[in-house]
Amino acid sequence: MSTVKSTTSRHFLGLKGVSSSEIKDILDRADFWENHPQKVTDRLKGKFVSNLFFENSTRTRFSFEMAEKRLGANVLNFSAAESSVQKGESIYDTVRTLESMGIDAGVIRLKPVGLLAELAEKIRVPLINAGDGNNEHPTQALLDLYTMRSHFGEIRGLTVSIIGDILHSRVARSNLWALREMGAAVKLCAPANMQAPELAAYAPYVSMQEALQSDVVMMLRVQLERHDKGMIASAEEYREQYGLTSRRLEQMAPHAIIMHPAPVNRNVELDDELVEHHRSKIFTQIHNGVPIRMAVIERTLS
Amino acid sequence: MSTVKSTTSRHFLGLKGVSSSEIKDILDRADFWENHPQKVTDRLKGKFVSNLFFENSTRTRFSFEMAEKRLGANVLNFSAAESSVQKGESIYDTVRTLESMGIDAGVIRLKPVGLLAELAEKIRVPLINAGDGNNEHPTQALLDLYTMRSHFGEIRGLTVSIIGDILHSRVARSNLWALREMGAAVKLCAPANMQAPELAAYAPYVSMQEALQSDVVMMLRVQLERHDKGMIASAEEYREQYGLTSRRLEQMAPHAIIMHPAPVNRNVELDDELVEHHRSKIFTQIHNGVPIRMAVIERTLS
Amino acid sequence: MSTVKSTTSRHFLGLKGVSSSEIKDILDRADFWENHPQKVTDRLKGKFVSNLFFENSTRTRFSFEMAEKRLGANVLNFSAAESSVQKGESIYDTVRTLESMGIDAGVIRLKPVGLLAELAEKIRVPLINAGDGNNEHPTQALLDLYTMRSHFGEIRGLTVSIIGDILHSRVARSNLWALREMGAAVKLCAPANMQAPELAAYAPYVSMQEALQSDVVMMLRVQLERHDKGMIASAEEYREQYGLTSRRLEQMAPHAIIMHPAPVNRNVELDDELVEHHRSKIFTQIHNGVPIRMAVIERTLS
Repeated sequence: MSTVKSTTSRHFLGLKGVSSSEIKDILDRADFWENHPQKVTDRLKGKFVSNLFFENSTRTRFSFEMAEKRLGANVLNFSAAESSVQKGESIYDTVRTLESMGIDAGVIRLKPVGLLAELAEKIRVPLINAGDGNNEHPTQALLDLYTMRSHFGEIRGLTVSIIGDILHSRVARSNLWALREMGAAVKLCAPANMQAPELAAYAPYVSMQEALQSDVVMMLRVQLERHDKGMIASAEEYREQYGLTSRRLEQMAPHAIIMHPAPVNRNVELDDELVEHHRSKIFTQIHNGVPIRMAVIERTLS
Repeated sequence: MSTVKSTTSRHFLGLKGVSSSEIKDILDRADFWENHPQKVTDRLKGKFVSNLFFENSTRTRFSFEMAEKRLGANVLNFSAAESSVQKGESIYDTVRTLESMGIDAGVIRLKPVGLLAELAEKIRVPLINAGDGNNEHPTQALLDLYTMRSHFGEIRGLTVSIIGDILHSRVARSNLWALREMGAAVKLCAPANMQAPELAAYAPYVSMQEALQSDVVMMLRVQLERHDKGMIASAEEYREQYGLTSRRLEQMAPHAIIMHPAPVNRNVELDDELVEHHRSKIFTQIHNGVPIRMAVIERTLS
Repeated sequence: MSTVKSTTSRHFLGLKGVSSSEIKDILDRADFWENHPQKVTDRLKGKFVSNLFFENSTRTRFSFEMAEKRLGANVLNFSAAESSVQKGESIYDTVRTLESMGIDAGVIRLKPVGLLAELAEKIRVPLINAGDGNNEHPTQALLDLYTMRSHFGEIRGLTVSIIGDILHSRVARSNLWALREMGAAVKLCAPANMQAPELAAYAPYVSMQEALQSDVVMMLRVQLERHDKGMIASAEEYREQYGLTSRRLEQMAPHAIIMHPAPVNRNVELDDELVEHHRSKIFTQIHNGVPIRMAVIERTLS
């Protein structure tokens, strides 16, 4: 996936292969929107953006919807009922249907691995990735980078630990590609059954002890029900081995910050009292999601 | 809860302790909107209001949504799936998330008793109560008062009977506080297992016979499945003892009106043919909900 | 149902009895919107249209929603949960509630046979039929006619075969009434248990072989679960006897086109590779739905 293919093409599918100058442009444009005196503009007046959420996520959808409305676009929301099986074919037909009706862009979230890349070949209207199986979640990583840059001034030279279910995490992957491109060092930390071996070529797997020694400690949401119970039997056990507890916070450097893509499993991967701790950036990340998505949607529609 | 706390504070949580002059201001402003020549205004242009319905209610949400859109606001709708358990913590995280994204106000409806008061302490963005457990439902009571004032000219001196499941009714409570403040006399009528004893200090529990002797007979929606079946075994039995039947309508004074917050259980608390009887104000109440909510949202956002 | 009743009345319920000049007016107005240089207009600024979908259909709702928003209207979406039983009484109460709140028009889709006609008697606000039991689906037929006219230049003189579950199809009925009025000849083709005998007075039931000899071959979505399994036991058997397969396409005239109201059961009534075949108009039909619905909504609200 070359730079050309992934961002100057009509879609916005991922950060792998996207250049640091392009990432910087998006972060700068998010800055512009963050500081814009008017909450709602006419930037995309007369345009239609459809949120096509084949995998439900109220928070991410809200963030995109607010970004779209702040840009002045009309919004069509599609949310698949959780119960209905979403096969590749019916997802394709739905996206193709919206395209035929005349939407100008689709923000899409789906589970089936590899399907978004297939859709991108067939669909002419620009698609923006809002969560693609375990592959990428580029706007989440961009808002994470934006949050780091706002806090530390620059991303180059930072060390970022990503801790948790790396295997299933599109957030980890998008962050890994973008952070490395921007000159940050990444460490990964996960129990053996949650590691993605192919990522070891880009970032070392380290112990929890070592993962805490970073500028940014990024915890991932864990879904224990996805995993073989053989290795980690319970939420309590996960917390004890891989959770960021109040006790472990003390082992972090005084300047280091806590991040998490939310929603948090309180007292599993992150202790309840750390969610709104002054060193936690969780709600700042959520706040930054809106200007980042404004920048991405605007760029994709231009 | 003093006047200051409940309405001049940033939230709009209830009518207990709200002064008659403030209530009058809201009713007058609803009059203004009811008679406004333009259906949609720019009053809240560029503002975002989120409807956070952790307890589903299509009708109440529609009423707020129409009020918000008539005021020119942008609207974000959140409806919890009925099946998903809504715990206090996840409700807090959702509201806090929307706040972080930059909404200007949240209209919130929830079941857990006491949670709204807790949220109000922690959330900075103004919250408007659209149904709070069995505590208050202030916009419903305001639209009821507005309907009474429109019909009778003034509220002072009226006698209002509230009949049905007082125990679980936030509508009864909000009406009780506001009606007393505005100079009306309230009577309560309920089977023993649906009475809220603590309200007897403010309004007497009377027989059905006596409850019918009022200017306003307000029936509440009954949900028999909430109650111990020992006392009232069936919808038929409820109707016979506490329903407003066509026969009982004859015992009401000729000038008295029927009210109900809707939706009605036809032929349980209210006979089918009375729903749209010329003495019933049910759809007038629904109509009045929109200007009342416009007045409340506008006030809360100013 | 006279011309006057069905289209110059306040509602838009069906095409039976609608004159060819009225149909032509709507198709011409759709042409106007299709070629309108601005995607969104102020035509219905300040108006509220509610989509009342008591029978879920994401696609049809999206098409109406896009039409409403392109006309500049405010939109309120109501979708019944699939699980909740929708009785006539509760549908009436919901529509009456929205009317009381001040909507300017309701777009309604429902299953119970005969209920829409009943509602139309009682509801004063204009109702637009977006799918009425097995009775009519007028905007679908209009977009079908628009598609035929765009392709062939005129409708008069065309032969159109409608193949599939005629018995349950409101699409078939609306097309039958409108096509005959516009001077097209219609043939019907269905297994015995999917025929509607009362339609034989207007269009002959023919063999599959003969149905393929038409200018337009319109396939209907089949729902085998609705039928007695005695006659056609499986999707495979249906495809073999009544499906438009690639092999059967070769029996069609070279100029003939394929239509389908979507969503398609791929490889049941229509072979997968024919869905986007160059002779298939399925996504063109979907595209045309938006300007047709703009024309219908505008007309109903004027």
